[in-house]
Amino acid sequence: MAPPHDDSKLETADESLSASNRPISTVLIIIAMQTEALPLVNKFQLSQAVDSVFPKGVPWVRYHGTYKDLNINIMWPGKDAVLGVDSVGTVSSSLLTYASVQTLQPDLIINAGTAGGFKAKGACIGDVFLVSEVAFHDRRIPIPVFDLYGVGLRQTCSTPNILKDLNLKVGKLSTGDSLDMCPQDESSIFANDATVKDMEGAAVAYVADLLKVPAVFIKAVTDVVDGDKPTTEEFLENLAAVAAALEQAVAQVIDYINGKCIAEL
Amino acid sequence: MAPPHDDSKLETADESLSASNRPISTVLIIIAMQTEALPLVNKFQLSQAVDSVFPKGVPWVRYHGTYKDLNINIMWPGKDAVLGVDSVGTVSSSLLTYASVQTLQPDLIINAGTAGGFKAKGACIGDVFLVSEVAFHDRRIPIPVFDLYGVGLRQTCSTPNILKDLNLKVGKLSTGDSLDMCPQDESSIFANDATVKDMEGAAVAYVADLLKVPAVFIKAVTDVVDGDKPTTEEFLENLAAVAAALEQAVAQVIDYINGKCIAEL
Repeated sequence: MAPPHDDSKLETADESLSASNRPISTVLIIIAMQTEALPLVNKFQLSQAVDSVFPKGVPWVRYHGTYKDLNINIMWPGKDAVLGVDSVGTVSSSLLTYASVQTLQPDLIINAGTAGGFKAKGACIGDVFLVSEVAFHDRRIPIPVFDLYGVGLRQTCSTPNILKDLNLKVGKLSTGDSLDMCPQDESSIFANDATVKDMEGAAVAYVADLLKVPAVFIKAVTDVVDGDKPTTEEFLENLAAVAAALEQAVAQVIDYINGKCIAEL
Repeated sequence: MAPPHDDSKLETADESLSASNRPISTVLIIIAMQTEALPLVNKFQLSQAVDSVFPKGVPWVRYHGTYKDLNINIMWPGKDAVLGVDSVGTVSSSLLTYASVQTLQPDLIINAGTAGGFKAKGACIGDVFLVSEVAFHDRRIPIPVFDLYGVGLRQTCSTPNILKDLNLKVGKLSTGDSLDMCPQDESSIFANDATVKDMEGAAVAYVADLLKVPAVFIKAVTDVVDGDKPTTEEFLENLAAVAAALEQAVAQVIDYINGKCIAEL
């Protein structure tokens, strides 16, 4: 006997099939820091939206424009209204992703940003990774099943052709709201088998999954977490140069997806 | 000479003045767990909304109804679609708060839930705290100003009359995405001077602040963090009983705010 909600499952499967066979039109790029976003804004000659599609008071900034056959939207969570620093982390990036998807109905989400890399897993400064799966490393809930919810492991959108045709490394991403890494974070990152660690990816993936939008994650390494230099120092030292490497990789991916559907990626 | 955006500041001040002098009409209650929500749903005889105001696919549940002069909405983030556990934590509670405020335009947010308490700060099992300020304890970003952004300290809506007239304890709340507490969390909780720790409060406060809605936080103690029993065991043991204490306290606050404006709380 068929379960009662079989129909809705078929409908969802049909919908996602037709979406994945339609050329990608609207791309939503979520980037946490202005320094990471601006090289791409310039590259694609995007302009900052004047009338915000977002509620009054939120600092979120939308850069948009047309590039080849694509409607490109770079969303940056903006500067904190009181403190004036980029609104990094999982809460603001999940809110921004949710509100942007509701407004723009994108065919594809790209979360691009800098990350810490683990040399033990083959990461070097300036490497750009296409992420195969994401998980959280700072949501420890030691109750059966809740523990898995906390980890929040998700596969990213499968892109075997991008991987084959573009010269990007592949690795797993672990997300947490701290720039540093305490021993408990380290254990969880190890359990997540992560090559790179960031502060937004798994939260963007959670929202993308909730709203059924395919998402890819491109992360460029600013600092070697298991290296000799302090993370903060190395991060600030390399941020601008690595943002340029990130720009190149994202531009490559954008050129690649132009005219293609999700199933061709 | 007046700064250029003086007018908008005055307008904002006027708006918030008029809002705070109008009787509270719509109340948004954010509760992370079904076990915490159901006693209140029954108490106020709320019904579950059939046509969701939220996007297809999100598990969020709205219970709503009229109680005295108030339009009451209890929002619960629902069960994770894959894992079937309550969608606890900062990401889902911030998304739910954002989407609910956009839809319902509430006059007041109440974030109610269970919490861990510190006996060194006077917390006992079953105590119900009205929260004076909130902060995060698991967002360590050791770069000047970013560190403050990570902590995300916020004052809650000032409610001197509730405190005077109802028999609630007052304390500071610290929020993180883990049920347990690692040494780094402990240091940050100590720095935050917190009496209670939860997994949602500071994220709800962030969104409330972003969207300029007054918010109060009512937290009932299920487990003593600095006690002898393991947190998880004590939490699960006391959850149902403490949810009843939480229900009583929230019902008291709801009765109190009925017919009053924000400035009278």
